[in-house]
Amino acid sequence: MSYRAPVKDMLFVMKELADLDSIAALPGFEDGNFDTAQAVLDEAARFCGEVIAPLNVAGDRDPSAWSDGQVRTTPGFKDAFRQFGQGGWQGVVHPSEFGGQNLPKLIATACMEMLNSANLSFALCPLLTDGAIEALLTAGTDEQKARYLPKFIAGEWTGTMNLTEPQAGSDLALVRTRAEPQGDGTYKLFGTKIFITYGEHDMAENIVHLVLARTPDAPEGVKGISLFIVPKFLVNDDGSLGARNDVHCVSIEHKLGIKASPTAVLQFGDHGGAVGYLIGEENHGLEYMFIMMNAARFAVGMQGVGVSERAYQQAVAYAKERVQSRPVDGSAREAVTIIHHPDVRRMLATMRAYTEGARALAYVAAAHSDVAHAHPDEAQRKKHQAVYEYLVPIVKGFSTEIAVDVASIGVQVHGGMGFIEETGAAQYYRDARILPIYEGTTAIQANDLIGRKTVRDGGAAAQLLLAHIDQTIAALAEVDGQPFKSMHRHLSAGSLSLGRSVEFIVARIKSDPNAVFLGSVPYLRLAGIVLCGWQMARAMLVSHARRAEDEPFHTAKIATAQFYAEHILSLAPGLETAIVSANGSEGVLALSEDQF
Amino acid sequence: MSYRAPVKDMLFVMKELADLDSIAALPGFEDGNFDTAQAVLDEAARFCGEVIAPLNVAGDRDPSAWSDGQVRTTPGFKDAFRQFGQGGWQGVVHPSEFGGQNLPKLIATACMEMLNSANLSFALCPLLTDGAIEALLTAGTDEQKARYLPKFIAGEWTGTMNLTEPQAGSDLALVRTRAEPQGDGTYKLFGTKIFITYGEHDMAENIVHLVLARTPDAPEGVKGISLFIVPKFLVNDDGSLGARNDVHCVSIEHKLGIKASPTAVLQFGDHGGAVGYLIGEENHGLEYMFIMMNAARFAVGMQGVGVSERAYQQAVAYAKERVQSRPVDGSAREAVTIIHHPDVRRMLATMRAYTEGARALAYVAAAHSDVAHAHPDEAQRKKHQAVYEYLVPIVKGFSTEIAVDVASIGVQVHGGMGFIEETGAAQYYRDARILPIYEGTTAIQANDLIGRKTVRDGGAAAQLLLAHIDQTIAALAEVDGQPFKSMHRHLSAGSLSLGRSVEFIVARIKSDPNAVFLGSVPYLRLAGIVLCGWQMARAMLVSHARRAEDEPFHTAKIATAQFYAEHILSLAPGLETAIVSANGSEGVLALSEDQF
Repeated sequence: MSYRAPVKDMLFVMKELADLDSIAALPGFEDGNFDTAQAVLDEAARFCGEVIAPLNVAGDRDPSAWSDGQVRTTPGFKDAFRQFGQGGWQGVVHPSEFGGQNLPKLIATACMEMLNSANLSFALCPLLTDGAIEALLTAGTDEQKARYLPKFIAGEWTGTMNLTEPQAGSDLALVRTRAEPQGDGTYKLFGTKIFITYGEHDMAENIVHLVLARTPDAPEGVKGISLFIVPKFLVNDDGSLGARNDVHCVSIEHKLGIKASPTAVLQFGDHGGAVGYLIGEENHGLEYMFIMMNAARFAVGMQGVGVSERAYQQAVAYAKERVQSRPVDGSAREAVTIIHHPDVRRMLATMRAYTEGARALAYVAAAHSDVAHAHPDEAQRKKHQAVYEYLVPIVKGFSTEIAVDVASIGVQVHGGMGFIEETGAAQYYRDARILPIYEGTTAIQANDLIGRKTVRDGGAAAQLLLAHIDQTIAALAEVDGQPFKSMHRHLSAGSLSLGRSVEFIVARIKSDPNAVFLGSVPYLRLAGIVLCGWQMARAMLVSHARRAEDEPFHTAKIATAQFYAEHILSLAPGLETAIVSANGSEGVLALSEDQF
Repeated sequence: MSYRAPVKDMLFVMKELADLDSIAALPGFEDGNFDTAQAVLDEAARFCGEVIAPLNVAGDRDPSAWSDGQVRTTPGFKDAFRQFGQGGWQGVVHPSEFGGQNLPKLIATACMEMLNSANLSFALCPLLTDGAIEALLTAGTDEQKARYLPKFIAGEWTGTMNLTEPQAGSDLALVRTRAEPQGDGTYKLFGTKIFITYGEHDMAENIVHLVLARTPDAPEGVKGISLFIVPKFLVNDDGSLGARNDVHCVSIEHKLGIKASPTAVLQFGDHGGAVGYLIGEENHGLEYMFIMMNAARFAVGMQGVGVSERAYQQAVAYAKERVQSRPVDGSAREAVTIIHHPDVRRMLATMRAYTEGARALAYVAAAHSDVAHAHPDEAQRKKHQAVYEYLVPIVKGFSTEIAVDVASIGVQVHGGMGFIEETGAAQYYRDARILPIYEGTTAIQANDLIGRKTVRDGGAAAQLLLAHIDQTIAALAEVDGQPFKSMHRHLSAGSLSLGRSVEFIVARIKSDPNAVFLGSVPYLRLAGIVLCGWQMARAMLVSHARRAEDEPFHTAKIATAQFYAEHILSLAPGLETAIVSANGSEGVLALSEDQF
């Protein structure tokens, strides 16, 4: 079935929850007002719906294929990518001096969601190029920027991130790829990189690999890693393509999902060395890579939102069409469409509540990033940057974990048909499964959330958010009606659980790190449930005030928020138990390997 | 990786929790004592580990294939099925007069778990044959029994269940297949059946279809359905095979998982009519089909336990082997195997806690079934039958829902490698997804749990179980130590939540059925969490008493039970909220279709 971008909900979130108007008032974002946003989203919705979404199933059935070092992508992808570049979609958020549109990340985030809903596999190529652009903008020389950025932004060349090696996945300290200085400012690289998304393909003239490697005298561990540009084709001074570089794709993986996206094993330097150019300073590679990774982690979070929305749309369409069984309340004597059955409602409402909550939190996070970049006041920039950084692992970790659940429920709504590949629901279930793994597993996100984002500032960013939640709780208390009472009750309980968990983590991290980390993913999930619930609460308050303007939209929002409170937020205290009773769980931590 | 049956845990559960000794004391089960159980399980473990498990991956890569009406199964399956039949494995639980071993269902359940762990796709063939045997034992004539049962039990012929039609999935009232009486006691059947597991294959000489159909004057709805035997090859009076019957496999499905198991579309009567023989009386088909379905539902629950155990074993093996990152507590300066990382422990403990809890509950349910069949006192039989019937939808619904989660966590433990098909973890994730769907979706199980099993007896069976739980809670209070305190606290809270939910459901079912059914699956999940938690609590009490006999086994059991209490049982009150605040959720129930 086709994809229809939920533009109305996106604009609602942007305007009412993420405060697009105040973003548009920041210096440099003068073009980022509501009218622009609406125009951009409408056009993105058309492009994604008409050009990209129809290629999703094709990508699953006729995936990228490797032959003799070359990768042929799914028929139609190359042409679609050409249109993507020509339409300016790679440059939405990037500086106009290199051909971008310089729009707020908030607007780009909505576009990103659509592209991912339309086609997760396709969207990965621009996602990685975005990361390469960010890294060069931050750490590249003027000459490097001038050489690569316009090509990336025009969609003529694409970028990759080369981190993982067979022995080095989550742990980059184990990276072994070597970079030998040639005395002329260039390096030669030797090594093997695995899991390289779009590491080889036929959609662009050139592929520019950003590669982590070690110089000969580098210190051990993560402090001895440098970042290099290794183009597939060397680039002449006039910008034209030169010789083929010594980086070769020796195979691609046979994967559970996102099959159209080639996952390459790249061999560097088997024929004398791959020419590489240092980015920034030696031994600072991890720092630059984190820039790419933070952008990519947020983007993968949007993949979670995107595939959740798509799975929801497909499930709704089926539920409106499939006739089966009489209503449980005896209100009809004939079988009805299954959307009338309470449990199907529950499933659809669960999918929707998670998706809307995760969307809202991600867009709000994007707005914090925009303020952090563009606000004239440094204190404001710092404060919003801290909140954004707290939210990134949650957007990544939570949105992707729920995407797996949402896609699984999507299969369930289809009954037996969901298990048949032709139906399409199963593809989302397979595709979504990579999201909590790549760009840092959920455990890695949770470690980041605990270590860098909670403990380092003594819980300050979390407490700032909790103080905002208190304001929303106070506002809920002012409104009559069961939906608001329910939300008041469960958001109150959830925020208390989150607050106590933050205190526990900060207090215990030194004395009992293992116990704290046993609760790391429950903490991430709790934070996600509460923060997304907070957005649903804010949304229902707006919908209450604006109800008359668009009755169907706003009553649905209030009902979805109430459902979120009663079926999802209500799980928060149980998660707190898993976190804070970690001190009683020496049990499974103390077991020997043999006892497993 | 290979499968090693957890015989020690199985025997522990059988002896300590399911009271095998008292089952063996029942008339007819004299051979079902502990020594027999141990011998049977050891041999089943060997057979499943050596013969069946190695075919699991092969079945996924070279699945059943259709050609011109014939289905070729995965190479090796036919021979393995021959060994299965010759080994007597089809007949473990069936009467000795037809060649079975007449052992308790409790022992057969452990064998069933092993077969499913070894190979879900393979196990489906005997699972369906079991259902056909049960139906004939209950409703077949002596002549039908004599003709079919010995062949089934010897593994020479196999059985199928033909319920579903394109318009009739969960709702059998919509069945349209016709059965026309021929005046000689036989019928001719015409119609299309879909989703017929092992509806065509090459592993047996004959396939005997049990088919739901309507006679010409039958009433509408489920009260007009009859059950027929339709063999692929007609059977001569001397038992030899006769003419090919008019039932043909026109295609098999292209599925997400369990690919080795052919899912057939069967066409009855395209060439003059398929000869069928009535089972029991006309219009009582649904009743007989429920006998098959109840056996099959329990068995599918065991599929959930089986695939969970297999996914757990594979994840543990990987976690012991994969080296990545230094410990978070700084206890080593080098990277360690990932089983030392707290979050990997959490994932493995989650998989294990769910699996052990679900195993224990299923075995206890099987024991109730044994007492219900064999106890000399009718009141005892009735009481145990009521408890068994309460537990069947939970064993089916809960064990299969958690199997999807457990298999998903199994992929996550593997990180990026989990997404690569060659690793094998992804197969369990794909295979498991059918389990909450077939033999009645989780919603259908939850409807059964509410309607027939909770409301009909006014909650009596549930209250009986809750009274037993109270005894366990009292026993926990007598034991010192954090693990027992934790379990005491969370089992107490969970049982209160379950009790209040039962009361709510009984009280509201008439006045507000939609609100009650909105909480139906949360109720099933709550019941599963609490009842499996109760088994974990009983287990930890036994382990406490027996600790010195086998320190590694019993300390692991206690640690796993504590983890279950803190990370799983702790979610019970949140689920209660989802159930009892259903009255506040007119919201999503009241939305119009267009609002989705």
